[in-house]
Amino acid sequence: MARWAPGASDRLQRAAMELFAEDGFEATTVAGIAERAGVTERTFFRHFADKREVLFAGEEQLEAVFVDAIADAPPDASVAGLLVAALDAGGGTLQDVRGRDFARVRNEIITANEQLRERELLKLAKLSHAVTAALIARGVAEVTACLAGELVVLVFKTAFVRWVDAPSETRGLVELQHEGLAAISDLTHAEITVHP
Amino acid sequence: MARWAPGASDRLQRAAMELFAEDGFEATTVAGIAERAGVTERTFFRHFADKREVLFAGEEQLEAVFVDAIADAPPDASVAGLLVAALDAGGGTLQDVRGRDFARVRNEIITANEQLRERELLKLAKLSHAVTAALIARGVAEVTACLAGELVVLVFKTAFVRWVDAPSETRGLVELQHEGLAAISDLTHAEITVHP
Repeated sequence: MARWAPGASDRLQRAAMELFAEDGFEATTVAGIAERAGVTERTFFRHFADKREVLFAGEEQLEAVFVDAIADAPPDASVAGLLVAALDAGGGTLQDVRGRDFARVRNEIITANEQLRERELLKLAKLSHAVTAALIARGVAEVTACLAGELVVLVFKTAFVRWVDAPSETRGLVELQHEGLAAISDLTHAEITVHP
Repeated sequence: MARWAPGASDRLQRAAMELFAEDGFEATTVAGIAERAGVTERTFFRHFADKREVLFAGEEQLEAVFVDAIADAPPDASVAGLLVAALDAGGGTLQDVRGRDFARVRNEIITANEQLRERELLKLAKLSHAVTAALIARGVAEVTACLAGELVVLVFKTAFVRWVDAPSETRGLVELQHEGLAAISDLTHAEITVHP
């Protein structure tokens, strides 16, 4: 996920987001996106498989940020520490590189369309598996690594929903993720009565 | 979710599960299910909208078990205590009423079919929302209630996957849920360094 750059790919992404927001996802065509970006349709298809994939550009790069944070953490990091490292890196990158306004508009477009919601769920499932695999590669037991992969996505997505809810929420994504982790810690801290 | 009974609905469910397991979900017809159960197709459609819904019979009742456990908990229960109560009631009911063998076969059928996997995800999303609503009705703040609804589903589904993985896993669903809650508590307990 690169910062906005003057290349055709970024121009196409901006143009697509504008048109999706103005006319809706269904009514927007690849021809319209290319025209708005000042490039040919052929150039569009050199960068994206279809109009849907414009919304998911940078998906692999963001996933790699989570994964690299786990791989690059100090050897003595606890699994809990690896989770925080992954969330801080991933959430921090999303926050700094694309920013809240972009994330909010993108989220509104996706929420309004069932096919896009499904694609977004697939993206989050892939992120969860990637985090799990990165933890297993660091010697974390599979059961724990699976749970941790699911937790990272849960913390990320619930913090994300709050983050894009500006202006009522002014804190950053990373801070909201920390709050989510703390809330989950509280929620799972009950004395459990073991039944006979 | 009633215990197996001699009525037509239960006979149809057993017949459907047998045929799904033998021939696969796609190749099984309503006519075949009705024939195996010894009833007419008309009787089938009095109980189920289609062959898919046979696999989701009892969905509302199971959801109600989670919700009622929250509503009926002592007034001074903590939110963490409400989560344990919901999971113990829901997991305990699934474990006792239908049992592991039924759950394993059903899970294999669902895992093999994308349309059924989506329907199962929808069921879990509804369960999450129902738990959240039950917590809000008890005065829990919305942000916490949303997180808790997601957590209940996460703990339930990860414990469920381990539970049906017999014979390598011999513990009960409720015990596995407790273990999951404890693992999540550990995973979210890291010291978080707040960056300036």
